[in-house]
Amino acid sequence: MSNVRNLDLQLAEQIQHRIDDKTKPLGALGDLEVLARQLVLIFSQRMDVEQFATTRFAINNPQLVVFAGDHGIAAHGVSIAPSEVTGQMVANFANGGSAINVLCRQFDWQLSVVDCGILHAPEPKLGVISQRLGRRTASFTTAAAMSDEQLEQGLAYGKQLVETKLAYNCNLLAFGEMGIGNTSSAAAIFSALSGLAPEHTVGRGTGVSDDVHTKKRRLIEQALLFHSAQLNTALDILRCLGGFEICQMVGAMLAAAQQQKAIVVDGFIATAAAMLTIEMEPASRDYMIFAHNSGEQGHAKMLTYLQVKPLLNLGLRLGEGTGAALCLPILQSALAIYNDMASFSQAQVTDVVSA
Amino acid sequence: MSNVRNLDLQLAEQIQHRIDDKTKPLGALGDLEVLARQLVLIFSQRMDVEQFATTRFAINNPQLVVFAGDHGIAAHGVSIAPSEVTGQMVANFANGGSAINVLCRQFDWQLSVVDCGILHAPEPKLGVISQRLGRRTASFTTAAAMSDEQLEQGLAYGKQLVETKLAYNCNLLAFGEMGIGNTSSAAAIFSALSGLAPEHTVGRGTGVSDDVHTKKRRLIEQALLFHSAQLNTALDILRCLGGFEICQMVGAMLAAAQQQKAIVVDGFIATAAAMLTIEMEPASRDYMIFAHNSGEQGHAKMLTYLQVKPLLNLGLRLGEGTGAALCLPILQSALAIYNDMASFSQAQVTDVVSA
Repeated sequence: MSNVRNLDLQLAEQIQHRIDDKTKPLGALGDLEVLARQLVLIFSQRMDVEQFATTRFAINNPQLVVFAGDHGIAAHGVSIAPSEVTGQMVANFANGGSAINVLCRQFDWQLSVVDCGILHAPEPKLGVISQRLGRRTASFTTAAAMSDEQLEQGLAYGKQLVETKLAYNCNLLAFGEMGIGNTSSAAAIFSALSGLAPEHTVGRGTGVSDDVHTKKRRLIEQALLFHSAQLNTALDILRCLGGFEICQMVGAMLAAAQQQKAIVVDGFIATAAAMLTIEMEPASRDYMIFAHNSGEQGHAKMLTYLQVKPLLNLGLRLGEGTGAALCLPILQSALAIYNDMASFSQAQVTDVVSA
Repeated sequence: MSNVRNLDLQLAEQIQHRIDDKTKPLGALGDLEVLARQLVLIFSQRMDVEQFATTRFAINNPQLVVFAGDHGIAAHGVSIAPSEVTGQMVANFANGGSAINVLCRQFDWQLSVVDCGILHAPEPKLGVISQRLGRRTASFTTAAAMSDEQLEQGLAYGKQLVETKLAYNCNLLAFGEMGIGNTSSAAAIFSALSGLAPEHTVGRGTGVSDDVHTKKRRLIEQALLFHSAQLNTALDILRCLGGFEICQMVGAMLAAAQQQKAIVVDGFIATAAAMLTIEMEPASRDYMIFAHNSGEQGHAKMLTYLQVKPLLNLGLRLGEGTGAALCLPILQSALAIYNDMASFSQAQVTDVVSA
């Protein structure tokens, strides 16, 4: 469906050499060096050598999109809050009062909020982007979460949205979500993709009790059994177990990777979307930066499964894109180091690397 | 000597209540909530209730001080670079080309560089603050690193410097360092304070080979044996095993804690200074924020020993205060969440916390 290319590594050696020639011991800036290499590689695709040599690399107009969707599974009482809270939080995003608003204002992310299908459509005056696929998904315990048509439309909506954002000369996007019940969906997706049993993938979401946690796990075990004959491809898994917001996020990630833009992956639900995206288009991983390890128990296992190291580990378990938002200054630091730090010869420092 | 008070917890409950009333599940912002509580507590000391209720809490004029010193132990060849590199890097700091310069410019840290005693005094035109205690410490394998007079003068210098910085209405300070050989000194201090054998505390600094690593460990074992009758107090340990930059950093941390300012602790060497500071004045820990877990093997053990969780874990092993510098936006995020995020009632969101 999409067509994602691996990063062209033609300039990789030059980039690494420039990083190694900075006035510091080899590798002493740890993950910042890895990040600098990845970001400069992404941003220098299709550049010729001359343009590459004279460019100051920067993150332009970073976009953070929050996809919101409601989930049929929530009717089983697997969350601390009822589905109505999804819409209330969407209004909170639109009014600027939530955590993600605070962080986007602080770091100059351009924030968009998308209604992918929640119980009650937000009032138009709130300025929420309407890409509704329905009121909520079907409960995936006894039916596919969405139809083939909803799946296709959701992927197309996600893709279109990214294309709109890219018109603003943006080279980095982050995706967050809101949806009561969506840790259940993400855990089911992770189990289906990895083969790990739900006891290893199902966590407490934003803080459910032992009893609710047990019920949640059993419902997901039941759902995996119910759909077992169907879960053959990433698209099947997304259709049977996903959410409207997860579906649109996958579409968005595919489009961003296809356009060779950097993708900042947030927490547990966003990582489930990233896993589906990578399953469909393995090269999309080249464009992904994993923002943080959240407090949700399955998230660390997802990151291990993907063999990626997240940038932050702050025990966040809120979603909304908050972990991704917090990473922006670190990404900017990696580029600032690349652009502005002196080389050994510039600074007349004894080269302890090649010495 | 100093006189550090524990934080007054009178407003702690009100602060926690305000954090818990934000539109998010209880604790869902993880370490940001812990940070917000600590910073607001520090910044609200001596405020009356009315002033507290109307204050927007912010980090004012954050100061980052890099203390540089040379070490007698370096003559034994325990580092990847000769002692001359300390002075070269001090010049690089003064000229704005090092990693810490890049990060301070990015995040608006006010940067100061202090010559605590390096081989060759920097040229005056470089604007390095001169607080020299000598050319380098004595090799602590066969003598105390510094005299009683140097110790006392170093602590006083560190204290004076902080007092100067506080005149600029600053409420948060971070301390970094540069000194070829100083991971040896920090490992020796950690062993002396914790009783852990050098095999557990000595690492590879900025990247020495196996042979050098073994030599470094043996020299520190020898030093601990040589001084064993002397290492009774934190001051003794600092005098026998410390460095000029570590000594001044301890003086600076004591003064900052005494003045009830927030202290951002950087990597392995800064954490050794923090351990000495806490040993002298246990209440100083209330004011400390541990910035990161560095790539130096002993650092994670120090943080475990202190029972603190660092904010970042980016595999940095450069020093200079780089880890501390990178934390500033996260500290600002914690305060922005505290100041600006809506409460459940403000946002008309169902209170999933008290429900």
